[in-house]
Amino acid sequence: MPQLRLALAQVDAVVGDLEHNARTVLEWTARAKTAGAHLVAFPEMMLTGYPVEDLALRRSFVDASIAATTALATTLEACGLGELAVVVGYLDRATGERGIDDSGAGERGAGEREPDHGPTTQGQVTHDPASGAEGLPRGRPQNCVAVLHRGQVVARYAKHHLPNYGVFDEFRIFVPGESLTVVRVCGVDVALAICEDLWQEGGPVATTRRAGAELLLVVNASPYERHKYDTRLALATRRANEAGCALAYLNLVGAQDELVFDGDSLVVSAQGEVLARAPQFEQDLLVVDLDLAADTVDPVSLPAGVVHVTVSGRAVPAYDPIATRQAPRLDDVGEVWAALVTGLAGYVRKNGFSSVLVAMSGGIDSALVAALAADAIGGSNVFGVSMPSAYSSQHSRDDAADLAKRIGADYREQPIGRFVDAFLDELALTGVAEENLQARVRGLVLMALSNAEGHLVLATSNKSELAVGYSTLYGDSVGGYAPLKDVPKTLVWALARWRNAHARLRGEVPPIPDSSISKPPSAELRPGQTDQDSLPAYELLDAVLERYVV
Amino acid sequence: MPQLRLALAQVDAVVGDLEHNARTVLEWTARAKTAGAHLVAFPEMMLTGYPVEDLALRRSFVDASIAATTALATTLEACGLGELAVVVGYLDRATGERGIDDSGAGERGAGEREPDHGPTTQGQVTHDPASGAEGLPRGRPQNCVAVLHRGQVVARYAKHHLPNYGVFDEFRIFVPGESLTVVRVCGVDVALAICEDLWQEGGPVATTRRAGAELLLVVNASPYERHKYDTRLALATRRANEAGCALAYLNLVGAQDELVFDGDSLVVSAQGEVLARAPQFEQDLLVVDLDLAADTVDPVSLPAGVVHVTVSGRAVPAYDPIATRQAPRLDDVGEVWAALVTGLAGYVRKNGFSSVLVAMSGGIDSALVAALAADAIGGSNVFGVSMPSAYSSQHSRDDAADLAKRIGADYREQPIGRFVDAFLDELALTGVAEENLQARVRGLVLMALSNAEGHLVLATSNKSELAVGYSTLYGDSVGGYAPLKDVPKTLVWALARWRNAHARLRGEVPPIPDSSISKPPSAELRPGQTDQDSLPAYELLDAVLERYVV
Repeated sequence: MPQLRLALAQVDAVVGDLEHNARTVLEWTARAKTAGAHLVAFPEMMLTGYPVEDLALRRSFVDASIAATTALATTLEACGLGELAVVVGYLDRATGERGIDDSGAGERGAGEREPDHGPTTQGQVTHDPASGAEGLPRGRPQNCVAVLHRGQVVARYAKHHLPNYGVFDEFRIFVPGESLTVVRVCGVDVALAICEDLWQEGGPVATTRRAGAELLLVVNASPYERHKYDTRLALATRRANEAGCALAYLNLVGAQDELVFDGDSLVVSAQGEVLARAPQFEQDLLVVDLDLAADTVDPVSLPAGVVHVTVSGRAVPAYDPIATRQAPRLDDVGEVWAALVTGLAGYVRKNGFSSVLVAMSGGIDSALVAALAADAIGGSNVFGVSMPSAYSSQHSRDDAADLAKRIGADYREQPIGRFVDAFLDELALTGVAEENLQARVRGLVLMALSNAEGHLVLATSNKSELAVGYSTLYGDSVGGYAPLKDVPKTLVWALARWRNAHARLRGEVPPIPDSSISKPPSAELRPGQTDQDSLPAYELLDAVLERYVV
Repeated sequence: MPQLRLALAQVDAVVGDLEHNARTVLEWTARAKTAGAHLVAFPEMMLTGYPVEDLALRRSFVDASIAATTALATTLEACGLGELAVVVGYLDRATGERGIDDSGAGERGAGEREPDHGPTTQGQVTHDPASGAEGLPRGRPQNCVAVLHRGQVVARYAKHHLPNYGVFDEFRIFVPGESLTVVRVCGVDVALAICEDLWQEGGPVATTRRAGAELLLVVNASPYERHKYDTRLALATRRANEAGCALAYLNLVGAQDELVFDGDSLVVSAQGEVLARAPQFEQDLLVVDLDLAADTVDPVSLPAGVVHVTVSGRAVPAYDPIATRQAPRLDDVGEVWAALVTGLAGYVRKNGFSSVLVAMSGGIDSALVAALAADAIGGSNVFGVSMPSAYSSQHSRDDAADLAKRIGADYREQPIGRFVDAFLDELALTGVAEENLQARVRGLVLMALSNAEGHLVLATSNKSELAVGYSTLYGDSVGGYAPLKDVPKTLVWALARWRNAHARLRGEVPPIPDSSISKPPSAELRPGQTDQDSLPAYELLDAVLERYVV
């Protein structure tokens, strides 16, 4: 049996930063070469980042993606990496539009605007989703992978199945592909597929079997979601059986805006045996040796809809395979912790910040946010400010200071009494208006410090509060990123306990003061206030929200 | 020739408020009866409002829409309106799903969740867009119209073409319809279509011709967009020719969230003659008498894909037709003014507010916002507050007071110097941080007054400022609605001049002080500041933004 050493580069990409993403491909291809790989794959839309949303509809961006892919092939060759076959996700024009020149002939003229629901000045234009609005290109592009080898783009595959539900809006921005691409690398026939293609019965999976490929390589940008119960492995196993060959599942890792990608790439044999598995939420190069039959696809009698490209036809001499690796799996709360840290770190870094500012009240929400931030970007990059009012208890102030010390954060106190009094003296405020005033004065102090010192402000509201409006607009809601926006209050406590237990297991100082976890939650905006004056018990509230808020 | 008196009810609907929308149908059907109409039509998704977005995916909402439609038919009959044929937009289950009971058999069971991109525990489920995520119904519903008569839902039509570009996401939430419905009313065969169906070559328009209908009735929820150049009329004329019959185009009017619907319903003959046209941006009952051939569709040999329902087969006795009416058209800036007033009025009312609060700086943006608000909800419901700082000029304060007087608004002054000084004394702020502080103190005062008095705060930032970030987050951006968010600065001035000229023509007091229009724009956050210290001339900036921001 000939051998193929496959490297799955489970890496992060930045939406829109083609140059940065190309550098990442270069760097990890070099690692793959060092590891002796013959074929290295990168995630779905690696060069453009994912999700690109309506950026996909800008012709200039699609052109830049194509140019970056071509340039990357040249650079890889120039850096001595040209012998590796590199599979890399990017954005390309739809098949029917390729070869159109840039003179604008492919764009609508000024007299062909679509001012309402459709064009009226052209006889034959059907107003299908592929035709865009004014100022956008005529056609949607395709979500593609390119195969790079010896300085050239030698093959291309466009995603067939475009998810259009939940966080996905791909039908709006992409044209589906129609043919299957099989590339022969070191004599092994490898079929290519992208993400949703794997979730569909039939389609590329069935065509892979008909074509007779020995490996189905699926590149993904599949977001983390809680309670998956390892369905990816179950799916990969089933599809490997259906495709009748080994299956490699490569996922993006990192965070982009409101999505977190968890990695967790894996390789299974045709029989469903797990051959290798990468860690969750970490960049990784997963290298696996596969013993596969050679030349299983007959290029002269291909099934309909299959394109075959020989990248390197010669099998490699026999060698000793490397040991396989299966990374340990995180538990449920550990997954959530890692997802929150990944999301926060990605958002801070991709938006050009290096430090964050957190209002430390002594309560559990701000303590959790600060602990997450310390794990994400380092405690020394976390700046805490306590802003006590007349209603703030001494234990709250002590807990806030204790937290900062535990995580190694910068800490200051800025009392707000004088500011609040100035407003109360001139504006006759009572009740909720007075309570909100305090939260808004704190928001104003946070933004002033952010402006003066350049930190990203983190908002500390959790999902339970946000869902019922137990939060002050322009007060608690102030901040560029809200790490707990999708974390209900009961999970806030569970995460805090999990993180402290994790620290104790490792002999480290638990980051969160126990009293922040155990005391009754209070906004401390009036004397003796607790959350349960206004809300049901959080166990009950969260159970309701779980059923009501998707 | 038999006659048909058609009434197009160009009315407003509220998303989600089925009860309110049903009352509107009842009220306007009564008006149509008084006007002697035989057939009355209501806009696309009249009963549910438009756009419903992902609310469409909640089974409970679809069920409520169906129940409301049935109940409406009963109520119309009970109110003596049953003899009129009523065409009303609503949300219904997809054809294949109708008749499914409510036991949950049509839903996925708990073991059939779709945790990632697709289900893995079911053998045959294709993961097409019709299958939703956990907690959502298995199937998407359909964007439908029902025909109500004598207490029953007698016919139904589902939209064929689902727009999925720009502000439209219908492919995500609806299943397309496949058959054409023709109803015979007073002997006249009327084909039904919905909005995007009209913009497509072929489809329902071509089928209408094949079936031989005498009238194509198209109901719409078509948002206002600037620079349309009357393409709707051009399209209606062309499609009437293609369908070989008269065409009635009925549009929604009013505002829902970020969309404004401009009405402008019209009726054209088969030869393309405009028979009647309703005003823009106003509710209206457009009544027109049509002389049309009877029984033109042969129900026993229908073309494929056509459903024919006889509502009332007997032609009405001859009568004298009423005079036709063609409302005058607004000019370009007049359209924008009406759209902004409609958007603001709808947002305030549909969110349960009756008054607004505007920071009146004496500048042109706040003056325009206040004048729009006065036109939208009446000057006496507009509350202005001037918040001078040390950098505010006397002329600004005078202009603010003058504005309030002109539009009949409540007016107060609340200096912010003492608040700003309190912060500056304790926080060492300079430069932009100090400038932003002033804007944020103003935002805080606005929200305190909003909390205390119940007004909706209007933000005054224009599109040019927002596009380049010349605006303070949690400062100028404070407010529940930003009327100028899509109005570039050069258009702000044009609108102000247009509104004042309009007042002068009518012998009224121009609402906006001339000095607010003519003085150089300044944020007045430091001595002698003008916008052009930081920005290019607005004519240049807006020309750039026009090309860059779609």
